[in-house]
Amino acid sequence: MAANRFYVTEVFEAVPTPTFEALFDTLATGGIDEAVVPIENSLFGSVHTNYDLLREHDVRIVAELKLRVRHNLLVHPGVELQDVRAVLSHPQALGQCREFLARSLPNAEIIPAYDTAGAAKQIAADDRRDQAAIASEAAAGEYGLHILARGIESNHENYTRFLRLASGSVESNVACVGGDCRTSVVYAMRNNVPGALFKSLAIFALRELDLLKIESRPLVGSPFEYLFYLDFRGSLRDDPVVKALNHLEEIAAYVKVLGSYPAGPMVD
Amino acid sequence: MAANRFYVTEVFEAVPTPTFEALFDTLATGGIDEAVVPIENSLFGSVHTNYDLLREHDVRIVAELKLRVRHNLLVHPGVELQDVRAVLSHPQALGQCREFLARSLPNAEIIPAYDTAGAAKQIAADDRRDQAAIASEAAAGEYGLHILARGIESNHENYTRFLRLASGSVESNVACVGGDCRTSVVYAMRNNVPGALFKSLAIFALRELDLLKIESRPLVGSPFEYLFYLDFRGSLRDDPVVKALNHLEEIAAYVKVLGSYPAGPMVD
Repeated sequence: MAANRFYVTEVFEAVPTPTFEALFDTLATGGIDEAVVPIENSLFGSVHTNYDLLREHDVRIVAELKLRVRHNLLVHPGVELQDVRAVLSHPQALGQCREFLARSLPNAEIIPAYDTAGAAKQIAADDRRDQAAIASEAAAGEYGLHILARGIESNHENYTRFLRLASGSVESNVACVGGDCRTSVVYAMRNNVPGALFKSLAIFALRELDLLKIESRPLVGSPFEYLFYLDFRGSLRDDPVVKALNHLEEIAAYVKVLGSYPAGPMVD
Repeated sequence: MAANRFYVTEVFEAVPTPTFEALFDTLATGGIDEAVVPIENSLFGSVHTNYDLLREHDVRIVAELKLRVRHNLLVHPGVELQDVRAVLSHPQALGQCREFLARSLPNAEIIPAYDTAGAAKQIAADDRRDQAAIASEAAAGEYGLHILARGIESNHENYTRFLRLASGSVESNVACVGGDCRTSVVYAMRNNVPGALFKSLAIFALRELDLLKIESRPLVGSPFEYLFYLDFRGSLRDDPVVKALNHLEEIAAYVKVLGSYPAGPMVD
Protein backbone atom coordinates (compact mmCIF):
# COMPACT_ATOMS: atom_id res chain seq x y z
CA MET A 1 0.00 0.00 0.00
CA ALA A 2 2.82 2.41 0.87
CA ALA A 3 4.73 1.51 -2.31
CA ASN A 4 1.66 2.37 -4.39
CA ARG A 5 1.69 5.83 -2.80
CA PHE A 6 5.43 6.36 -3.29
CA TYR A 7 5.50 5.19 -6.93
CA VAL A 8 2.51 7.00 -8.34
CA THR A 9 3.81 7.60 -11.87
CA GLU A 10 6.45 4.86 -12.08
CA VAL A 11 5.75 1.27 -13.10
CA PHE A 12 7.40 -1.07 -10.56
CA GLU A 13 7.65 -4.74 -9.78
CA ALA A 14 7.06 -5.48 -6.07
CA VAL A 15 9.54 -8.06 -4.74
CA PRO A 16 8.61 -9.62 -1.37
CA THR A 17 11.31 -10.54 1.19
CA PRO A 18 10.71 -12.81 4.20
CA THR A 19 12.23 -10.40 6.74
CA PHE A 20 13.42 -6.80 7.05
CA GLU A 21 16.97 -8.20 7.32
CA ALA A 22 16.57 -9.86 3.91
CA LEU A 23 15.11 -6.65 2.48
CA PHE A 24 18.09 -4.53 3.56
CA ASP A 25 20.57 -7.19 2.37
CA THR A 26 18.85 -7.42 -1.02
CA LEU A 27 18.83 -3.64 -1.41
CA ALA A 28 22.46 -3.17 -0.33
CA THR A 29 23.68 -5.91 -2.69
CA GLY A 30 21.80 -4.62 -5.75
CA GLY A 31 19.05 -7.26 -5.90
CA ILE A 32 16.37 -4.54 -5.92
CA ASP A 33 16.46 -0.86 -6.93
CA GLU A 34 14.65 0.59 -3.95
CA ALA A 35 12.87 -0.56 -0.80
CA VAL A 36 9.88 0.61 1.25
CA VAL A 37 9.96 0.05 5.03
CA PRO A 38 7.84 1.18 7.99
CA ILE A 39 9.87 3.16 10.53
CA GLU A 40 7.34 4.38 13.12
CA ASN A 41 3.68 4.33 13.99
CA SER A 42 1.87 7.20 15.68
CA LEU A 43 0.31 4.93 18.35
CA PHE A 44 2.79 2.16 18.99
CA GLY A 45 6.11 3.84 18.28
CA SER A 46 9.19 3.00 16.27
CA VAL A 47 10.07 -0.13 14.33
CA HIS A 48 13.37 -0.51 16.14
CA THR A 49 14.68 -3.32 13.95
CA ASN A 50 14.60 -0.98 10.98
CA TYR A 51 16.50 1.73 12.87
CA ASP A 52 19.22 -0.86 13.54
CA LEU A 53 19.21 -2.08 9.92
CA LEU A 54 19.40 1.48 8.51
CA ARG A 55 22.59 2.01 10.47
CA GLU A 56 24.12 -1.36 9.55
CA HIS A 57 23.58 -1.21 5.77
CA ASP A 58 24.91 0.94 2.94
CA VAL A 59 21.51 2.50 2.17
CA ARG A 60 19.98 5.97 2.28
CA ILE A 61 16.52 7.47 2.81
CA VAL A 62 15.19 9.21 -0.34
CA ALA A 63 11.56 9.90 0.66
CA GLU A 64 8.98 9.48 3.45
CA LEU A 65 5.21 9.41 3.76
CA LYS A 66 2.71 8.92 6.57
CA LEU A 67 -0.05 6.44 5.71
CA ARG A 68 -3.33 6.21 7.63
CA VAL A 69 -3.74 2.72 9.18
CA ARG A 70 -7.07 0.96 9.81
CA HIS A 71 -7.23 -2.37 11.66
CA ASN A 72 -10.07 -4.88 11.64
CA LEU A 73 -10.80 -8.10 13.52
CA LEU A 74 -11.09 -10.89 10.91
CA VAL A 75 -12.66 -14.32 11.53
CA HIS A 76 -14.13 -17.18 9.53
CA PRO A 77 -17.73 -16.45 8.46
CA GLY A 78 -20.15 -17.34 11.27
CA VAL A 79 -17.56 -17.05 14.06
CA GLU A 80 -18.60 -14.72 16.90
CA LEU A 81 -16.62 -12.87 19.54
CA GLN A 82 -17.24 -15.49 22.23
CA ASP A 83 -15.73 -18.19 19.97
CA VAL A 84 -12.37 -16.44 19.72
CA ARG A 85 -9.67 -18.00 21.92
CA ALA A 86 -6.62 -16.43 20.25
CA VAL A 87 -5.78 -13.32 18.20
CA LEU A 88 -2.94 -13.32 15.66
CA SER A 89 -1.25 -10.30 14.11
CA HIS A 90 1.99 -8.42 13.75
CA PRO A 91 3.20 -7.20 17.19
CA GLN A 92 2.78 -3.56 16.07
CA ALA A 93 -0.88 -4.17 15.13
CA LEU A 94 -1.49 -6.08 18.37
CA GLY A 95 -0.04 -3.11 20.25
CA GLN A 96 -2.21 -0.64 18.35
CA CYS A 97 -5.35 -2.61 19.28
CA ARG A 98 -4.36 -3.26 22.90
CA GLU A 99 -7.39 -1.42 24.36
CA PHE A 100 -9.91 -3.22 22.11
CA LEU A 101 -8.36 -6.59 22.99
CA ALA A 102 -8.34 -5.86 26.74
CA ARG A 103 -12.01 -4.76 26.60
CA SER A 104 -13.54 -7.23 24.13
CA LEU A 105 -11.29 -10.29 24.28
CA PRO A 106 -9.65 -10.13 27.74
CA ASN A 107 -9.06 -13.89 27.87
CA ALA A 108 -7.85 -14.44 24.31
CA GLU A 109 -4.27 -15.55 23.80
CA ILE A 110 -2.23 -12.94 21.89
CA ILE A 111 -0.05 -14.58 19.22
CA PRO A 112 2.53 -12.54 17.28
CA ALA A 113 2.80 -13.19 13.53
CA TYR A 114 5.22 -12.01 10.85
CA ASP A 115 2.73 -9.61 9.30
CA THR A 116 -0.95 -8.68 9.45
CA ALA A 117 -1.89 -10.23 6.07
CA GLY A 118 0.09 -13.36 6.98
CA ALA A 119 -1.96 -13.72 10.18
CA ALA A 120 -5.17 -13.55 8.12
CA LYS A 121 -3.77 -16.09 5.65
CA GLN A 122 -2.79 -18.42 8.50
CA ILE A 123 -6.18 -18.56 10.23
CA ALA A 124 -7.81 -19.00 6.80
CA ALA A 125 -5.43 -21.78 5.74
CA ASP A 126 -5.56 -23.59 9.09
CA ASP A 127 -9.37 -23.25 9.18
CA ARG A 128 -9.11 -22.01 12.77
CA ARG A 129 -12.60 -21.03 13.86
CA ASP A 130 -11.33 -20.32 17.40
CA GLN A 131 -8.87 -17.68 16.17
CA ALA A 132 -9.08 -14.12 14.84
CA ALA A 133 -6.56 -12.04 12.92
CA ILE A 134 -6.04 -8.30 13.04
CA ALA A 135 -5.50 -7.11 9.47
CA SER A 136 -6.71 -4.80 6.72
CA GLU A 137 -10.01 -4.89 4.87
CA ALA A 138 -8.02 -5.97 1.79
CA ALA A 139 -6.74 -9.06 3.65
CA ALA A 140 -10.32 -10.02 4.60
CA GLY A 141 -11.29 -9.99 0.93
CA GLU A 142 -8.18 -11.86 -0.17
CA TYR A 143 -8.54 -14.73 2.31
CA GLY A 144 -12.34 -15.00 2.45
CA LEU A 145 -12.63 -13.82 6.07
CA HIS A 146 -15.42 -11.86 7.73
CA ILE A 147 -14.84 -8.50 9.41
CA LEU A 148 -16.20 -8.94 12.96
CA ALA A 149 -15.12 -5.45 14.14
CA ARG A 150 -13.85 -2.48 12.13
CA GLY A 151 -11.44 0.28 13.09
CA ILE A 152 -10.35 -1.41 16.34
CA GLU A 153 -7.17 0.64 16.72
CA SER A 154 -6.95 2.48 20.08
CA ASN A 155 -6.85 5.87 18.49
CA HIS A 156 -7.89 6.81 15.01
CA GLU A 157 -4.97 9.21 14.67
CA ASN A 158 -3.14 6.12 13.48
CA TYR A 159 -0.47 6.68 10.85
CA THR A 160 2.57 4.66 9.91
CA ARG A 161 5.55 6.57 8.58
CA PHE A 162 7.22 4.72 5.71
CA LEU A 163 10.64 5.37 4.25
CA ARG A 164 11.68 4.85 0.65
CA LEU A 165 15.28 3.67 0.54
CA ALA A 166 17.97 3.45 -2.15
CA SER A 167 21.38 1.80 -1.94
CA GLY A 168 24.61 3.74 -1.43
CA SER A 169 25.56 6.55 0.92
CA VAL A 170 23.73 9.87 1.00
CA GLU A 171 26.70 12.19 0.48
CA SER A 172 26.71 12.01 -3.35
CA ASN A 173 22.93 11.53 -3.66
CA VAL A 174 21.06 14.14 -1.62
CA ALA A 175 17.36 13.60 -2.34
CA CYS A 176 16.18 17.03 -1.16
CA VAL A 177 17.78 20.38 -2.01
CA GLY A 178 15.79 23.48 -1.05
CA GLY A 179 12.16 23.45 0.09
CA ASP A 180 10.96 21.58 3.18
CA CYS A 181 13.71 18.97 3.68
CA ARG A 182 14.40 16.54 6.52
CA THR A 183 17.76 15.03 7.43
CA SER A 184 18.24 11.87 9.52
CA VAL A 185 21.46 11.02 11.32
CA VAL A 186 22.63 8.40 13.82
CA TYR A 187 25.53 8.92 16.23
CA ALA A 188 27.21 7.62 19.36
CA MET A 189 28.91 9.93 21.85
CA ARG A 190 32.38 9.29 23.26
CA ASN A 191 32.55 7.25 26.48
CA ASN A 192 30.73 8.88 29.36
CA VAL A 193 31.23 12.53 28.34
CA PRO A 194 29.17 14.40 30.98
CA GLY A 195 26.14 16.03 29.42
CA ALA A 196 26.95 14.40 26.06
CA LEU A 197 23.37 14.11 24.85
CA PHE A 198 22.64 17.73 25.78
CA LYS A 199 25.78 18.91 23.99
CA SER A 200 24.90 16.98 20.84
CA LEU A 201 21.40 18.51 20.72
CA ALA A 202 22.84 21.98 21.39
CA ILE A 203 24.77 21.64 18.10
CA PHE A 204 21.44 21.68 16.24
CA ALA A 205 19.45 23.99 18.53
CA LEU A 206 22.10 26.74 18.47
CA ARG A 207 21.91 26.69 14.63
CA GLU A 208 18.08 26.83 14.76
CA LEU A 209 17.78 23.42 13.09
CA ASP A 210 14.48 22.12 14.53
CA LEU A 211 14.63 18.61 15.97
CA LEU A 212 11.66 16.51 14.86
CA LYS A 213 12.45 13.19 16.49
CA ILE A 214 14.99 11.51 18.75
CA GLU A 215 15.22 7.75 19.09
CA SER A 216 17.70 5.96 21.34
CA ARG A 217 18.96 2.42 20.72
CA PRO A 218 21.36 0.31 22.77
CA LEU A 219 25.04 0.52 21.89
CA VAL A 220 25.87 -3.19 21.56
CA GLY A 221 28.86 -4.16 23.71
CA SER A 222 28.46 -1.15 26.04
CA PRO A 223 25.52 -1.96 28.34
CA PHE A 224 23.33 1.05 29.12
CA GLU A 225 25.06 3.36 26.67
CA TYR A 226 23.11 4.44 23.60
CA LEU A 227 23.08 5.38 19.94
CA PHE A 228 20.89 8.38 19.08
CA TYR A 229 18.88 8.77 15.89
CA LEU A 230 17.86 12.36 15.12
CA ASP A 231 15.53 13.74 12.47
CA PHE A 232 15.80 17.50 11.94
CA ARG A 233 14.69 20.13 9.44
CA GLY A 234 17.18 20.93 6.68
CA SER A 235 19.19 19.34 3.87
CA LEU A 236 22.74 18.09 3.65
CA ARG A 237 23.13 20.79 0.96
CA ASP A 238 22.38 23.58 3.51
CA ASP A 239 25.41 25.28 5.02
CA PRO A 240 24.15 25.21 8.67
CA VAL A 241 23.46 21.48 8.36
CA VAL A 242 26.98 20.80 7.04
CA LYS A 243 28.46 22.88 9.88
CA ALA A 244 26.28 21.16 12.48
CA LEU A 245 27.35 17.71 11.25
CA ASN A 246 31.02 18.76 11.25
CA HIS A 247 30.53 19.98 14.82
CA LEU A 248 28.89 16.66 15.74
CA GLU A 249 31.93 14.79 14.32
CA GLU A 250 34.12 16.81 16.73
CA ILE A 251 32.43 15.39 19.82
CA ALA A 252 30.94 12.07 18.67
CA ALA A 253 32.61 8.65 18.47
CA TYR A 254 30.53 7.74 15.41
CA VAL A 255 28.26 9.63 12.97
CA LYS A 256 26.32 8.32 9.96
CA VAL A 257 23.98 10.47 7.85
CA LEU A 258 20.98 8.35 6.81
CA GLY A 259 19.52 10.74 4.22
CA SER A 260 18.11 14.14 3.28
CA TYR A 261 14.61 13.84 1.80
CA PRO A 262 11.46 15.93 1.28
CA ALA A 263 9.04 16.23 4.22
CA GLY A 264 6.38 13.60 3.45
CA PRO A 265 2.60 14.04 3.27
CA MET A 266 -0.03 12.34 5.47
CA VAL A 267 -2.12 10.18 3.12
CA ASP A 268 -5.39 8.33 3.70
CA MET B 1 14.91 -14.67 38.34
CA ALA B 2 14.92 -10.89 38.83
CA ALA B 3 12.46 -11.11 41.76
CA ASN B 4 14.80 -13.53 43.55
CA ARG B 5 17.55 -10.90 43.26
CA PHE B 6 15.36 -8.01 44.44
CA TYR B 7 13.89 -9.86 47.43
CA VAL B 8 16.97 -11.42 48.97
CA THR B 9 15.94 -11.25 52.61
CA GLU B 10 12.16 -11.05 52.23
CA VAL B 11 9.90 -14.07 51.85
CA PHE B 12 7.52 -13.46 48.96
CA GLU B 13 4.84 -15.24 47.00
CA ALA B 14 5.32 -14.88 43.21
CA VAL B 15 2.00 -14.22 41.43
CA PRO B 16 2.07 -14.70 37.65
CA THR B 17 -0.02 -12.48 35.33
CA PRO B 18 -0.72 -13.30 31.66
CA THR B 19 0.37 -9.90 30.36
CA PHE B 20 2.21 -6.77 31.47
CA GLU B 21 -1.15 -4.93 31.28
CA ALA B 22 -2.62 -7.37 33.82
CA LEU B 23 0.44 -6.97 36.03
CA PHE B 24 0.13 -3.16 36.17
CA ASP B 25 -3.64 -3.36 36.73
CA THR B 26 -3.20 -5.88 39.56
CA LEU B 27 -0.53 -3.73 41.22
CA ALA B 28 -2.47 -0.46 40.89
CA THR B 29 -5.65 -2.01 42.33
CA GLY B 30 -3.93 -3.62 45.34
CA GLY B 31 -4.01 -7.25 44.19
CA ILE B 32 -0.24 -7.54 44.74
CA ASP B 33 2.17 -5.59 46.93
CA GLU B 34 4.92 -5.04 44.39
CA ALA B 35 5.78 -5.98 40.81
CA VAL B 36 8.96 -6.75 38.86
CA VAL B 37 9.12 -5.80 35.16
CA PRO B 38 11.84 -5.72 32.50
CA ILE B 39 12.33 -2.22 31.08
CA GLU B 40 15.33 -2.51 28.72
CA ASN B 41 17.92 -4.93 27.41
CA SER B 42 21.46 -3.92 26.53
CA LEU B 43 21.25 -5.63 23.10
CA PHE B 44 17.55 -5.51 22.12
CA GLY B 45 16.59 -2.12 23.58
CA SER B 46 13.61 -0.95 25.59
CA VAL B 47 10.42 -2.79 26.50
CA HIS B 48 8.21 0.00 25.16
CA THR B 49 4.94 -1.46 26.44
CA ASN B 50 6.22 -1.12 29.99
CA TYR B 51 7.19 2.53 29.42
CA ASP B 52 3.59 3.18 28.35
CA LEU B 53 2.14 1.22 31.29
CA LEU B 54 4.35 3.03 33.84
CA ARG B 55 2.90 6.32 32.67
CA GLU B 56 -0.70 5.10 32.60
CA HIS B 57 -0.86 3.56 36.07
CA ASP B 58 -0.65 4.88 39.62
CA VAL B 59 2.65 3.10 40.37
CA ARG B 60 6.21 4.12 41.24
CA ILE B 61 9.69 2.68 40.75
CA VAL B 62 11.33 1.72 44.06
CA ALA B 63 14.44 -0.17 42.83
CA GLU B 64 16.30 -1.34 39.72
CA LEU B 65 18.86 -4.01 38.86
CA LYS B 66 20.63 -5.19 35.72
CA LEU B 67 20.57 -8.96 35.33
CA ARG B 68 23.05 -10.80 33.10
CA VAL B 69 21.33 -12.74 30.29
CA ARG B 70 22.74 -16.04 29.03
CA HIS B 71 21.74 -17.83 25.84
CA ASN B 72 21.43 -21.60 25.66
CA LEU B 73 20.69 -24.12 22.93
CA LEU B 74 17.41 -25.84 23.86
CA VAL B 75 16.10 -29.09 22.37
CA HIS B 76 13.62 -31.81 23.24
CA PRO B 77 15.10 -34.33 25.73
CA GLY B 78 17.17 -36.96 23.90
CA VAL B 79 17.86 -34.79 20.84
CA GLU B 80 21.55 -34.47 20.00
CA LEU B 81 23.49 -31.88 18.02
CA GLN B 82 23.54 -34.01 14.84
CA ASP B 83 19.70 -34.21 14.88
CA VAL B 84 19.27 -30.42 14.70
CA ARG B 85 18.29 -29.18 11.21
CA ALA B 86 17.05 -25.70 12.18
CA VAL B 87 17.62 -23.16 14.97
CA LEU B 88 14.93 -20.66 16.02
CA SER B 89 15.40 -17.47 18.04
CA HIS B 90 15.18 -13.69 18.01
CA PRO B 91 17.43 -12.35 15.20
CA GLN B 92 19.69 -10.55 17.68
CA ALA B 93 20.11 -13.71 19.76
CA LEU B 94 20.86 -15.68 16.56
CA GLY B 95 23.41 -13.02 15.58
CA GLN B 96 24.94 -13.08 19.02
CA CYS B 97 25.42 -16.85 18.81
CA ARG B 98 26.69 -16.78 15.20
CA GLU B 99 30.15 -18.12 16.12
CA PHE B 100 28.72 -21.06 18.03
CA LEU B 101 26.28 -21.82 15.21
CA ALA B 102 28.98 -21.64 12.51
CA ARG B 103 31.22 -23.97 14.51
CA SER B 104 28.70 -26.46 15.91
CA LEU B 105 25.73 -26.34 13.50
CA PRO B 106 27.15 -25.12 10.17
CA ASN B 107 24.36 -26.74 8.09
CA ALA B 108 21.37 -25.83 10.27
CA GLU B 109 18.72 -23.49 8.86
CA ILE B 110 18.48 -20.26 10.85
CA ILE B 111 14.87 -19.21 11.49
CA PRO B 112 14.10 -15.80 13.05
CA ALA B 113 11.39 -15.64 15.74
CA TYR B 114 9.83 -12.72 17.61
CA ASP B 115 11.48 -13.52 20.91
CA THR B 116 13.71 -16.13 22.50
CA ALA B 117 11.12 -17.62 24.87
CA GLY B 118 8.61 -17.72 21.99
CA ALA B 119 11.05 -19.79 19.94
CA ALA B 120 11.38 -22.28 22.82
CA LYS B 121 7.60 -22.41 23.23
CA GLN B 122 7.19 -23.06 19.49
CA ILE B 123 9.56 -26.03 19.21
CA ALA B 124 8.03 -27.47 22.39
CA ALA B 125 4.43 -27.01 21.20
CA ASP B 126 5.17 -28.30 17.68
CA ASP B 127 7.14 -31.27 19.08
CA ARG B 128 9.97 -30.53 16.62
CA ARG B 129 12.80 -32.94 17.43
CA ASP B 130 14.76 -31.64 14.40
CA GLN B 131 14.79 -28.07 15.73
CA ALA B 132 16.57 -26.16 18.50
CA ALA B 133 15.76 -22.81 20.11
CA ILE B 134 18.18 -20.28 21.55
CA ALA B 135 16.70 -19.06 24.84
CA SER B 136 17.22 -18.75 28.59
CA GLU B 137 17.58 -21.48 31.16
CA ALA B 138 14.19 -20.35 32.52
CA ALA B 139 12.60 -21.01 29.11
CA ALA B 140 14.04 -24.53 29.14
CA GLY B 141 12.39 -25.17 32.49
CA GLU B 142 9.12 -23.58 31.45
CA TYR B 143 8.72 -25.56 28.22
CA GLY B 144 10.27 -28.85 29.31
CA LEU B 145 13.30 -28.58 27.03
CA HIS B 146 16.84 -29.83 27.55
CA ILE B 147 19.86 -27.51 27.55
CA LEU B 148 22.24 -28.97 24.94
CA ALA B 149 24.80 -26.12 25.23
CA ARG B 150 25.08 -23.26 27.76
CA GLY B 151 26.33 -19.66 27.40
CA ILE B 152 26.68 -19.86 23.62
CA GLU B 153 26.65 -16.09 23.02
CA SER B 154 29.74 -14.47 21.47
CA ASN B 155 29.02 -11.15 23.19
CA HIS B 156 28.59 -11.57 26.92
CA GLU B 157 27.65 -7.91 27.49
CA ASN B 158 24.00 -8.87 27.64
CA TYR B 159 21.97 -7.47 30.54
CA THR B 160 18.29 -6.81 31.13
CA ARG B 161 17.38 -3.94 33.42
CA PHE B 162 14.44 -4.76 35.71
CA LEU B 163 12.35 -2.36 37.81
CA ARG B 164 10.72 -3.11 41.12
CA LEU B 165 7.40 -1.25 41.37
CA ALA B 166 5.02 -0.33 44.19
CA SER B 167 1.57 1.23 43.94
CA GLY B 168 0.89 4.91 44.60
CA SER B 169 2.65 8.08 43.53
CA VAL B 170 6.28 8.78 44.34
CA GLU B 171 5.86 12.15 46.05
CA SER B 172 5.13 10.78 49.52
CA ASN B 173 7.27 7.63 49.10
CA VAL B 174 10.73 8.52 47.83
CA ALA B 175 12.71 5.27 47.76
CA CYS B 176 16.19 6.87 47.66
CA VAL B 177 17.40 9.77 49.83
CA GLY B 178 21.12 10.49 49.70
CA GLY B 179 23.70 8.21 48.09
CA ASP B 180 23.65 7.26 44.41
CA CYS B 181 20.01 7.85 43.45
CA ARG B 182 18.24 7.85 40.10
CA THR B 183 15.04 9.68 39.22
CA SER B 184 12.78 8.80 36.27
CA VAL B 185 10.29 11.23 34.79
CA VAL B 186 8.00 11.33 31.75
CA TYR B 187 6.81 14.55 30.13
CA ALA B 188 5.22 16.05 27.04
CA MET B 189 6.13 19.50 25.76
CA ARG B 190 3.53 22.11 24.75
CA ASN B 191 2.45 22.05 21.10
CA ASN B 192 5.27 22.69 18.71
CA VAL B 193 7.42 24.89 20.96
CA PRO B 194 10.56 25.40 18.82
CA GLY B 195 13.52 23.64 20.34
CA ALA B 196 11.31 22.15 23.06
CA LEU B 197 13.31 18.96 23.55
CA PHE B 198 16.55 20.92 23.78
CA LYS B 199 15.06 23.33 26.32
CA SER B 200 13.76 20.46 28.47
CA LEU B 201 17.18 18.81 28.57
CA ALA B 202 18.84 22.17 29.33
CA ILE B 203 16.81 22.28 32.57
CA PHE B 204 18.76 19.25 33.81
CA ALA B 205 22.12 19.94 32.15
CA LEU B 206 22.34 23.50 33.53
CA ARG B 207 21.85 22.07 37.05
CA GLU B 208 24.51 19.40 36.41
CA LEU B 209 21.99 16.60 36.79
CA ASP B 210 23.49 13.90 34.52
CA LEU B 211 21.09 12.37 32.03
CA LEU B 212 21.40 8.58 31.92
CA LYS B 213 18.73 7.69 29.38
CA ILE B 214 16.17 9.27 27.09
CA GLU B 215 13.35 7.29 25.54
CA SER B 216 10.74 8.77 23.22
CA ARG B 217 7.25 7.34 22.80
CA PRO B 218 4.44 8.51 20.55
CA LEU B 219 1.98 11.02 22.01
CA VAL B 220 -1.28 9.23 21.24
CA GLY B 221 -3.70 11.49 19.39
CA SER B 222 -0.95 13.81 18.11
CA PRO B 223 0.76 11.91 15.28
CA PHE B 224 4.52 12.44 15.18
CA GLU B 225 4.69 14.30 18.47
CA TYR B 226 6.33 12.53 21.40
CA LEU B 227 6.48 11.87 25.12
CA PHE B 228 9.97 11.80 26.61
CA TYR B 229 11.12 9.52 29.40
CA LEU B 230 14.28 10.68 31.18
CA ASP B 231 16.43 8.93 33.77
CA PHE B 232 18.86 11.22 35.57
CA ARG B 233 21.10 11.16 38.64
CA GLY B 234 19.58 12.54 41.83
CA SER B 235 16.63 12.12 44.20
CA LEU B 236 13.32 13.89 44.50
CA ARG B 237 14.57 14.88 47.98
CA ASP B 238 17.51 16.86 46.44
CA ASP B 239 16.95 20.59 46.06
CA PRO B 240 18.34 20.85 42.47
CA VAL B 241 16.04 18.01 41.38
CA VAL B 242 12.99 19.73 42.90
CA LYS B 243 13.95 22.99 41.18
CA ALA B 244 14.57 21.23 37.85
CA LEU B 245 11.16 19.53 37.99
CA ASN B 246 9.46 22.84 38.88
CA HIS B 247 11.24 24.39 35.91
CA LEU B 248 10.07 21.51 33.69
CA GLU B 249 6.45 22.13 34.83
CA GLU B 250 6.83 25.73 33.60
CA ILE B 251 7.40 24.66 29.99
CA ALA B 252 5.82 21.20 29.72
CA ALA B 253 2.20 20.29 29.01
CA TYR B 254 2.46 17.22 31.25
CA VAL B 255 4.97 15.90 33.80
CA LYS B 256 4.87 12.69 35.87
CA VAL B 257 7.65 11.58 38.21
CA LEU B 258 7.96 7.78 38.00
CA GLY B 259 10.25 7.29 40.98
CA SER B 260 13.50 8.01 42.83
CA TYR B 261 15.41 4.80 43.58
CA PRO B 262 18.94 3.59 44.33
CA ALA B 263 21.24 3.00 41.33
CA GLY B 264 21.00 -0.73 40.75
CA PRO B 265 23.83 -3.27 40.58
CA MET B 266 24.75 -5.46 37.58
CA VAL B 267 24.19 -9.01 38.80
CA ASP B 268 25.20 -12.32 37.28
